[in-house]
Amino acid sequence: MLAEIITIGDEILIGQTVDTNSAWMGRELNKRGIAVKYITTISDTPEDIRAALDVASYRADLVLMTGGLGPTQDDVTKATLCSYFNTTLEHNEEVHARIASFFERIGRPMMEVHGLQAQLPKSATVLMNARGTASGMWFDKDDTVFISMPGVPYEMKGIMTDEVFDRLPSRFALPTRAQHTIMTGGVGESTLAKKIEKVETDLRTAGLGLAYLPSPGSVKLRISKSGNDEAKIREEVAFWSRKVETLVKEHIYGYDDASMVQVLGELLKTKGDTLSVAESCTGGFISHELTSLSGSSVYFMGSIVSYDNQVKMDDLGVLESDLIAHGAVSQPVVEQMAVGVRNRYKTTYAISTSGIAGPTGGSEKKPVGTVWVGIATPSRVYSRKFLFGHNRQRNIEMTTLYAFNMLRKEILSEALATTEK
Amino acid sequence: MLAEIITIGDEILIGQTVDTNSAWMGRELNKRGIAVKYITTISDTPEDIRAALDVASYRADLVLMTGGLGPTQDDVTKATLCSYFNTTLEHNEEVHARIASFFERIGRPMMEVHGLQAQLPKSATVLMNARGTASGMWFDKDDTVFISMPGVPYEMKGIMTDEVFDRLPSRFALPTRAQHTIMTGGVGESTLAKKIEKVETDLRTAGLGLAYLPSPGSVKLRISKSGNDEAKIREEVAFWSRKVETLVKEHIYGYDDASMVQVLGELLKTKGDTLSVAESCTGGFISHELTSLSGSSVYFMGSIVSYDNQVKMDDLGVLESDLIAHGAVSQPVVEQMAVGVRNRYKTTYAISTSGIAGPTGGSEKKPVGTVWVGIATPSRVYSRKFLFGHNRQRNIEMTTLYAFNMLRKEILSEALATTEK
Repeated sequence: MLAEIITIGDEILIGQTVDTNSAWMGRELNKRGIAVKYITTISDTPEDIRAALDVASYRADLVLMTGGLGPTQDDVTKATLCSYFNTTLEHNEEVHARIASFFERIGRPMMEVHGLQAQLPKSATVLMNARGTASGMWFDKDDTVFISMPGVPYEMKGIMTDEVFDRLPSRFALPTRAQHTIMTGGVGESTLAKKIEKVETDLRTAGLGLAYLPSPGSVKLRISKSGNDEAKIREEVAFWSRKVETLVKEHIYGYDDASMVQVLGELLKTKGDTLSVAESCTGGFISHELTSLSGSSVYFMGSIVSYDNQVKMDDLGVLESDLIAHGAVSQPVVEQMAVGVRNRYKTTYAISTSGIAGPTGGSEKKPVGTVWVGIATPSRVYSRKFLFGHNRQRNIEMTTLYAFNMLRKEILSEALATTEK
Repeated sequence: MLAEIITIGDEILIGQTVDTNSAWMGRELNKRGIAVKYITTISDTPEDIRAALDVASYRADLVLMTGGLGPTQDDVTKATLCSYFNTTLEHNEEVHARIASFFERIGRPMMEVHGLQAQLPKSATVLMNARGTASGMWFDKDDTVFISMPGVPYEMKGIMTDEVFDRLPSRFALPTRAQHTIMTGGVGESTLAKKIEKVETDLRTAGLGLAYLPSPGSVKLRISKSGNDEAKIREEVAFWSRKVETLVKEHIYGYDDASMVQVLGELLKTKGDTLSVAESCTGGFISHELTSLSGSSVYFMGSIVSYDNQVKMDDLGVLESDLIAHGAVSQPVVEQMAVGVRNRYKTTYAISTSGIAGPTGGSEKKPVGTVWVGIATPSRVYSRKFLFGHNRQRNIEMTTLYAFNMLRKEILSEALATTEK
């Protein structure tokens, strides 16, 4: 059972838009035992759409198309689908009523172009779009299912969730797939590979897959197997996962796609602890990551983004003498920032950052990528110095991930110390 | 002159990684008159790589491959390229020395797997990677150029910038392409389409292209033409762009891919003004966006992320009585936040946000997506209420964009008022 994703749209080809839809679909289909084998991005011209459909129909069982269904003049997708599937457009009253009520709800006038979106191919099963005006369409041709959806991510996700996923098991015999993901932090891909070298070879010989999935500051190890005997393949994946885990134990921060910020958030929530942040070089990104999780207000009290040194002194109690003697990117300053925000917002823990994110601002003694991260706890304050690279956004992301990992380890070691007493 | 991008890697197909490389390459190639016509993502199996190369070689002049060159066991790309281009691996001493010095620089031990990355195909021109250990490779076959690069974005970008772009004009006769992008904010695609309907038809008849490029809160209009007579097509694009601009004047915030935050930053810098932010529902994202620009420390002083109400009272001077009477998501609170942070950090302007980002926390009177944005200036404070949707990240992004646009307009209208005095 193989799937192909076809993304239609010049905005992707000219690089105006990053294709996040395919990653989401790949992830969701994988969970359901459907492997995406190809992702193709094409222009919205009839020739390219037809050619892509031809290729996909012989190599895939399920073809998911996104894009090309907007209300503006440059969309030719619907017409091409009609001719490809040998059908014609007809007015769909239910869809028309939905579109009208959609505009009523958002308080904007419905225009003629929106009305046209109720014109849908006769032979298609209409997939309702509760979040926008372009409906999804499900076509059956020979042995392949073709689904066309709008390219707006939250509309596409809505249609997949509301209308597509539930229909798949009745249409396809889905194989079972078991997988286990080990999340590691602060260690490179090569070091991990070296550590698990022998087990990796045996695991592959036993017919399992192992993938290294690196992102800034983190590498995920995914162990997987597909088959029909669900209990057996689950057991095999668990067996080999334990072997791998033993070899990389000290680097593991979580499992199964939990992000570092989720793991940290759960830890704080469980213990009833609170957190505040004093950010300089990360400029608000740590706070953004923390608050990207719904429910974070339980443990996250607030932050001070002290971009200017005056703010570091006035609001965080950083000593002017230390700023002069050591500079803002220094151990005494970052530790005073952590203590300062922790006291100010009366939290259990605090994180602070001060560094040179780049690409400019470096010196010989403090090159671009130099970052100090501070952690304040009920019992102590400590800090670490990092040297990342030259890319501003990457330095900000790496700092954030390492800061979260430092705090996570500190909380765990404090818990351990308490238990041992 | 057509290009195709082939992305190799299961991490993209299973949705672990979003393919941002293709967007970057598409954008950069477009600027240089090279149109990317297809983007294909495949597994790193010899069969899929060979098949993708076969298809690409007949439909593209330039084939850019990324991925599949990491140091771990699951990479088969280099071997497949050797067999496809009928060559063998040989040890490259210069590359080996570079890899060794790379590890010396970052202070990590060089391992055997890294040494293997100095084994490169004999017939390829080696493209040096100054940021990592996997070299790029340039193959010429029949009339097509194939370039293979590592998938790590900043390594790929480095190789493209250092080694690829300059070689392209001597290898290909590049057509000239002129384009002009009009950035609009706070207006939907359909409304824009309606406003420029007639000009759009005439413009297309005249052989120009017009693309609508929507992102949360913003739509870009791109007018373009390719050809050989550079002066003539530039003039045509300018002529039709002026016609379009006249029709959507009030929605334009900038041109040619300037982001809203860049436009706002330039405005503040030019006038020597400063900015502070009090964030609640945006949780640090506004600060992150501001500080994502290198040099923002000139005008951005700092922020308070007042997630907890106590912080709103203590640090921003929000009245407890107003929090009780109106709630945190209310006009009086958001206006007090803006005034509070502006006074505290002594800035020319301040932005504040308070809302229900979702997906939970809504009520009948204040549904999810309800957001107040406040702006404080030297002469006044004012605020606007928005009703966005149900998606947390989208609500945060929309709030950020609308807040920047509100401040931008305020600064411009104040400048106008001063001029008129």
